[in-house]
Amino acid sequence: MNCMFFNGIILTMNSKNSVIQDGCIVVEDDIIIDVGKYSELKNKYHGYEKFDCKNKIITPPFINCHTHASMTLLRGYADDLPLFEWLTKWIFPVEKTLTPDDIYLGTKLAVIESALSGVSCLNTMYYFMDMEAEAISQAGLRGVVGHVCFSNNKKQDSSLTFNLVKKWHNSNNGLIRVSVDPHSVYTVDPAYLKELHQLRNELNDKYGSQNAPIRWHIHTAETSDELIKMRESFNSSESSEVKRLVCESYDGVFDYLNRLNVLDDQIVAAHCVHLTDKDINLIRDKSVNVVHNPVSNLKLASGVSPLPKLLNHNINVSLGTDGPCSNNSLDMFETIKITALLHKGVNLNPTLLPAVEVVKMATINAAKALGWDSEIGSIEKGKKADLLIIDLSRPHAVPLYNEFSQIVYALKSSDVDSLMINGRFIVENKVMKTVNVEETISKVVKWVADKFPDRSINS
Amino acid sequence: MNCMFFNGIILTMNSKNSVIQDGCIVVEDDIIIDVGKYSELKNKYHGYEKFDCKNKIITPPFINCHTHASMTLLRGYADDLPLFEWLTKWIFPVEKTLTPDDIYLGTKLAVIESALSGVSCLNTMYYFMDMEAEAISQAGLRGVVGHVCFSNNKKQDSSLTFNLVKKWHNSNNGLIRVSVDPHSVYTVDPAYLKELHQLRNELNDKYGSQNAPIRWHIHTAETSDELIKMRESFNSSESSEVKRLVCESYDGVFDYLNRLNVLDDQIVAAHCVHLTDKDINLIRDKSVNVVHNPVSNLKLASGVSPLPKLLNHNINVSLGTDGPCSNNSLDMFETIKITALLHKGVNLNPTLLPAVEVVKMATINAAKALGWDSEIGSIEKGKKADLLIIDLSRPHAVPLYNEFSQIVYALKSSDVDSLMINGRFIVENKVMKTVNVEETISKVVKWVADKFPDRSINS
Repeated sequence: MNCMFFNGIILTMNSKNSVIQDGCIVVEDDIIIDVGKYSELKNKYHGYEKFDCKNKIITPPFINCHTHASMTLLRGYADDLPLFEWLTKWIFPVEKTLTPDDIYLGTKLAVIESALSGVSCLNTMYYFMDMEAEAISQAGLRGVVGHVCFSNNKKQDSSLTFNLVKKWHNSNNGLIRVSVDPHSVYTVDPAYLKELHQLRNELNDKYGSQNAPIRWHIHTAETSDELIKMRESFNSSESSEVKRLVCESYDGVFDYLNRLNVLDDQIVAAHCVHLTDKDINLIRDKSVNVVHNPVSNLKLASGVSPLPKLLNHNINVSLGTDGPCSNNSLDMFETIKITALLHKGVNLNPTLLPAVEVVKMATINAAKALGWDSEIGSIEKGKKADLLIIDLSRPHAVPLYNEFSQIVYALKSSDVDSLMINGRFIVENKVMKTVNVEETISKVVKWVADKFPDRSINS
Repeated sequence: MNCMFFNGIILTMNSKNSVIQDGCIVVEDDIIIDVGKYSELKNKYHGYEKFDCKNKIITPPFINCHTHASMTLLRGYADDLPLFEWLTKWIFPVEKTLTPDDIYLGTKLAVIESALSGVSCLNTMYYFMDMEAEAISQAGLRGVVGHVCFSNNKKQDSSLTFNLVKKWHNSNNGLIRVSVDPHSVYTVDPAYLKELHQLRNELNDKYGSQNAPIRWHIHTAETSDELIKMRESFNSSESSEVKRLVCESYDGVFDYLNRLNVLDDQIVAAHCVHLTDKDINLIRDKSVNVVHNPVSNLKLASGVSPLPKLLNHNINVSLGTDGPCSNNSLDMFETIKITALLHKGVNLNPTLLPAVEVVKMATINAAKALGWDSEIGSIEKGKKADLLIIDLSRPHAVPLYNEFSQIVYALKSSDVDSLMINGRFIVENKVMKTVNVEETISKVVKWVADKFPDRSINS
């Protein structure tokens, strides 16, 4: 659509983090054609539909850089349990029974929750990813979808990934992208990791491009024992090469990945909680993109990422909620606030993670991580018309001294007024425009009632 | 009013944490006269106004056990700064200029924000507390107000406290109570601490009662250097007794307080981050009430309280937001979630702080801390009609497996549907009934614009 947003406070998230009071954004079709002060632009553009953003902040929408979207179905299914029991007794058994229709339904709920809370783009790893791509597409959100690959499902996984790329990469007006997603070092053996790295390169050559690359999305260093579990899983391999690689000694998960020659700037590495100094240097030297998931890391007791150290090394860090089963929310406002709080507290330094840095992580850093920053992540002339409009009128949102502080420490997902993606309103005046919210919720409620007739299984 | 809430899921927070599906609560005037299953009670009570709570949870409202309500005016005024600079360059100078009218206005905003987010009661310490009491009273909330006492304002503080108790303790239908509030060990010298302890006892004898006691509300062990600062502040005292007390060696802040003979079960001790083992034993032995303020402790980089240890010692722990200037919110849903997350993560144990325990902290434990548990903190026959009704219909609130998990990890302050205090609707269907919200917000916006003409002082 062709329109003009005026009177708002624009947080551009450009390289200077410029804030424009009395700001104006001019959109033609799916592109931002101008950004500036309304007083300067109002006589330059005529005949555009005008949206008054008085008492509103306009930012780039948030990008949720690590999640498993359809796990909304399992929100609150099992909490406060030891990790092994949580996984083996609760999560894995129920995951095995999920159907493609379930994945579609769960993702539909995830995109509704995401859009209403100001998220334009999900980097999501799961299975039956055709269905996740479908649900994200239909809602008009952006998504990077990846089929999660395990050694024990090798043959199928590679062809599923190949088909996913062929069908979906850079599809739906460029809103959907695909990544190659090895689950982790302890579930994917070294030979298969190399194979998936090679597969990604081949797919990138054929289907990717400079501005729409195919990333490698992987869980890394989430818990402290990943190399031990890796050895336990693969040291009885029939391949002597695998055995050799598995049994060598490594100074951290990234040292291991580096020795496999799979580390590069196309990697989106979720978690990065337990890192050696060597790991951190490798992440920096290879320009690996890190996704911080503080809520999940705390809830599952994985630990606290050495985030200030990563930032000191100029590593690109973005934010994710992780799956709604280990959070139990897809709320990026919450993740933003907890990121800003946590590292101050555990490092006893109140100047760490200042508000503007955390907003960068949720916007432009995330776009860079996904190789999408030529189009999204900031409000700049020539970029795609992705805009998040946040209402400043609620009691908890006043007074306003500093916009970045307000977003990080005071504003909430319920303050999201409107969300535009690719020039189209997905949420307008707090109403989801592209998906039937009530119908989706009814279906989820029915799904749980049918699947778990004795509902309160965890009480 | 005489009414009946039916069809809801009741989290009673009684001694068994009973959950009643298909629950019913019967209210007469300001009292809960019955609680049970609707199927059992519906034929017992007739002619009551009925409120259908289908797809809603009913809990005791949250009690914010440590805050400085009127500091809403300074929400986001100064963030991400070193503590000393924050206090001396930003907070103290502006606090000195606040007038009684400002305190009234800030508290009005605080009670609106609190009520809309499900908080019925504030334990608040500041100055011009007549004005805080007035604003809380007018809105129909409960409050424990205390005038913050410092050595350098000795004479005035004691008489202000005395007058506050006389005028407000157990006033406004018992909704307002008063506490005696020494600021901290490093701002109140040992002689004055003893004096304030004595004052509390005398006031309690004259104006307090078993069910409406006058508490001692104090900041304790918020930072690690409180005893050092205490010595710096008071070692040049003219009194040889004060000098002797100041210069002795202590094994923690509570060891110090104990040696002053001021520790007892009437103390509400905010923070308790930096505790020695001796401190923890003393807190348990003297039945001191602890208020955990995780958001403020993280944001100001005070550190992480040894909460699991306190709970292992069966110490009564409640929750607070602290002042909205060091948070920057009065949102107890947020504090609840962060409490549940933080201690799992830093202690690498996902079973710590299970959901139900954290809901207890925000309700019945807090009522106990304030000596108010004979009237509030749980939904039980004979207690005051304080009810929080939470909507379960939003996308982020489905599916529902376990009610306690949902409150702690998924629900948000924006899900608050209605809040009843003392049998009166303060919030009904998301609308504040007792204070003019728009007018208050306008006044706050104008206040900031007048006081800080160059608004974006921190950007």
